[in-house]
Amino acid sequence: MKLKGRHLIDVNDFTVEELQAIINLGLVIYKNPSKFSELCKGKILGTLFYEPSTRTRLSFESAMLRMGGTVLGFADAETSSVKKGESVADTIRVLDGYADIIVMRHPREGAPLLASQYSTVPIINGGDGGHQHPTQTLTDLLTIQYYKNHIENLKVAICGDLLFGRTVHSLLKTLSRFPNIEFILISPPELKIPLHLKNDVIEKHNVKIIETTSLEEHMKDIDVLYMTRIQKERFFNEDDYIKLKDSYILTPEKLKYAKEDLLLMHPLPRVNEINYDVDKDPRAKYFQQARLGVFARMALMVLLLGRDTNA
Amino acid sequence: MKLKGRHLIDVNDFTVEELQAIINLGLVIYKNPSKFSELCKGKILGTLFYEPSTRTRLSFESAMLRMGGTVLGFADAETSSVKKGESVADTIRVLDGYADIIVMRHPREGAPLLASQYSTVPIINGGDGGHQHPTQTLTDLLTIQYYKNHIENLKVAICGDLLFGRTVHSLLKTLSRFPNIEFILISPPELKIPLHLKNDVIEKHNVKIIETTSLEEHMKDIDVLYMTRIQKERFFNEDDYIKLKDSYILTPEKLKYAKEDLLLMHPLPRVNEINYDVDKDPRAKYFQQARLGVFARMALMVLLLGRDTNA
Amino acid sequence: MKLKGRHLIDVNDFTVEELQAIINLGLVIYKNPSKFSELCKGKILGTLFYEPSTRTRLSFESAMLRMGGTVLGFADAETSSVKKGESVADTIRVLDGYADIIVMRHPREGAPLLASQYSTVPIINGGDGGHQHPTQTLTDLLTIQYYKNHIENLKVAICGDLLFGRTVHSLLKTLSRFPNIEFILISPPELKIPLHLKNDVIEKHNVKIIETTSLEEHMKDIDVLYMTRIQKERFFNEDDYIKLKDSYILTPEKLKYAKEDLLLMHPLPRVNEINYDVDKDPRAKYFQQARLGVFARMALMVLLLGRDTNA
Repeated sequence: MKLKGRHLIDVNDFTVEELQAIINLGLVIYKNPSKFSELCKGKILGTLFYEPSTRTRLSFESAMLRMGGTVLGFADAETSSVKKGESVADTIRVLDGYADIIVMRHPREGAPLLASQYSTVPIINGGDGGHQHPTQTLTDLLTIQYYKNHIENLKVAICGDLLFGRTVHSLLKTLSRFPNIEFILISPPELKIPLHLKNDVIEKHNVKIIETTSLEEHMKDIDVLYMTRIQKERFFNEDDYIKLKDSYILTPEKLKYAKEDLLLMHPLPRVNEINYDVDKDPRAKYFQQARLGVFARMALMVLLLGRDTNA
Repeated sequence: MKLKGRHLIDVNDFTVEELQAIINLGLVIYKNPSKFSELCKGKILGTLFYEPSTRTRLSFESAMLRMGGTVLGFADAETSSVKKGESVADTIRVLDGYADIIVMRHPREGAPLLASQYSTVPIINGGDGGHQHPTQTLTDLLTIQYYKNHIENLKVAICGDLLFGRTVHSLLKTLSRFPNIEFILISPPELKIPLHLKNDVIEKHNVKIIETTSLEEHMKDIDVLYMTRIQKERFFNEDDYIKLKDSYILTPEKLKYAKEDLLLMHPLPRVNEINYDVDKDPRAKYFQQARLGVFARMALMVLLLGRDTNA
Repeated sequence: MKLKGRHLIDVNDFTVEELQAIINLGLVIYKNPSKFSELCKGKILGTLFYEPSTRTRLSFESAMLRMGGTVLGFADAETSSVKKGESVADTIRVLDGYADIIVMRHPREGAPLLASQYSTVPIINGGDGGHQHPTQTLTDLLTIQYYKNHIENLKVAICGDLLFGRTVHSLLKTLSRFPNIEFILISPPELKIPLHLKNDVIEKHNVKIIETTSLEEHMKDIDVLYMTRIQKERFFNEDDYIKLKDSYILTPEKLKYAKEDLLLMHPLPRVNEINYDVDKDPRAKYFQQARLGVFARMALMVLLLGRDTNA
């Protein structure tokens, strides 16, 4: 296993062993951050955000700053002059001279992959169109590891838009590679996971799937409940939307029969799919999940940069 | 008196003793900045500017950088993705995991207060709508202390739009709490201070007030002259504006009868209410005032973060 | 020769000896960057970009960060609040209190010069309108020095829009002051260098000039080929554009008769004036040129800040 100098474009480019190494290091840093506060001294993170994403950008920046490194970049292609018609290949061959590691978010699918083919420094995909967002998946895995002590033998329910949701697809694919995971997939009929994904997951990894339209039906069996947003515009008709929308809003009442050690997650931002009253429930860990994301990104950058964590 | 872990939302939340502690520390840092150049090492300032304010933002950033800390954030809500409909409460519960102290500017009154109710790290109000801008007041107080050696026994004249000016209201309220301050309030009749403010100031603190329409009438008695801008759109009719506008422009001539040790201030930016020829007058300290603002913010952050200034 | 505390507004304000000192220091840093990694510790670079220029801004930021300094500023006047009608003179008298050295890009010619007349810290012109962009010229000189070991006895060909190109004019003027430089100026007839520039160069420095419309005619004699973009809108009529555009696109074929040690440069961004197949040619150094620009800026800032490079 060697991560130094690698790019992270798709979380499935990494083996389970490699993912586990990142997660484990992330938790080591989380438990003793001061030990790592100078680990990236002299290193520069380039944040190339061709579309804005405050959370992802600031999470990466915080990660690098907390290890003694520094940051440069742009938050928006409109503000930058990168729109002058230059190719991504040319841009990256200039900017890789300014930074030691780069996180790129781009509205076009495949742009980070293209960048990685020209860059002399590691490229991390910070989200490309509706395609991949691998550090969200790393964050999700690390959160599960932290609260469940392992990523195996779990019944993971995912609720929301399973047809279009990028976060969900990535998480499904990746979790399928861990031992003995079962999925309970909760969505309106129109927003079930795509057939190709279902086939990939089932046939390649023999993962057990239950598909349901009810958020409550299997509540008592669930170990991890991963809520996501259902965008109104995804529904085929207004009537369906009105009929269904409330049934996918998590309330304290719906949690009544859930396990005591349920782990409740959400990639954020939430709009209204989790009632504010749920925030007080000790099983609600979505804000903590966002915090843990900083440590997933610290570990990732440390390993791609090849820093010596024992120094 | 304990400032560690506190928020600064309204300057009047702090006692005179606490304000004096911030001012005194600011002047100590000003006189020996190198002693403090590592005091905030490892600390991250989050600058959440939901509306742009270059001066305030850069003053805070300079303050943190000069103490060895680092900075992340956004300069404009348009560039950030925080406009996705997420509540301030949710946003702050994510971003407080990325930084150790946060300054927030927001177009909506009360947003920083709301943020402070959810944040686990100190929130500083960097300006909320037409409401509060407490670090401008801290800057003003520190400047008076520096040039007058104390904040008491002073005749303070304030000239401009006293009806709507946020900076002015905050300064009036705060100065009223210091010993033996007298105000000379100079404005067109339509732009006198609001009655509620006048009553509060007079009745609660027994401060002597003179209201006048003339910038020159009391010039010879003034210790501190605080100029502000009068926006054309505040006048009820064009004729009044044309008749009055020049009378509130400070010129070298109008300063002829002023005290030799007059302190001339302005919160900046100036448009034309102080003639450029006045800049050469040694009593004009508005640019120095902006510089001193960095030290007011350094002291404030040091105390809210609970850094040990004797280490 | 004394550079400490100076401004860089026009590259021709500096003597050849001073330019050579910057270039030499830049190459020393390039060869041993770790020796300089703390040289600007505690120093703050202010990046005041009144119009966006991602490359220039990030190159400066990388330069300062690599020397242990820090950065604050804005990337776009729209995002900043500097458009409130305040004069550049007032703005700079506030912002020079926040930083130790400032790079300013401004759409208006002369704005950095004006700023330098009020600033208490060194101002570097990061580009003002169509006027000056001195650190691009420094970058070009350093690149020539690096690959040719000297800046003299060279046949320098410059191809593209020689009438309006700001980069080209600055390079022509500056190179003319170095010993025994000859120019081969390649452009469409409508886009030849302006007469005043030609007279200045020829009459003042006795530089030999060949003007030609052919990119290939003198290829075998050229030591340095500096390609630039020809903007379609510069042509007087569409027919001319269609007829000429391909003749100024550099291809591997046109390079067939070039010297083995030709140095091929471009200020970037390129659009299509250099064919992508040329990138693989070992004589193509435009991406390396952009990297070397960081070191030119490091050396410039070190000298203007008066840092002791022997410490």
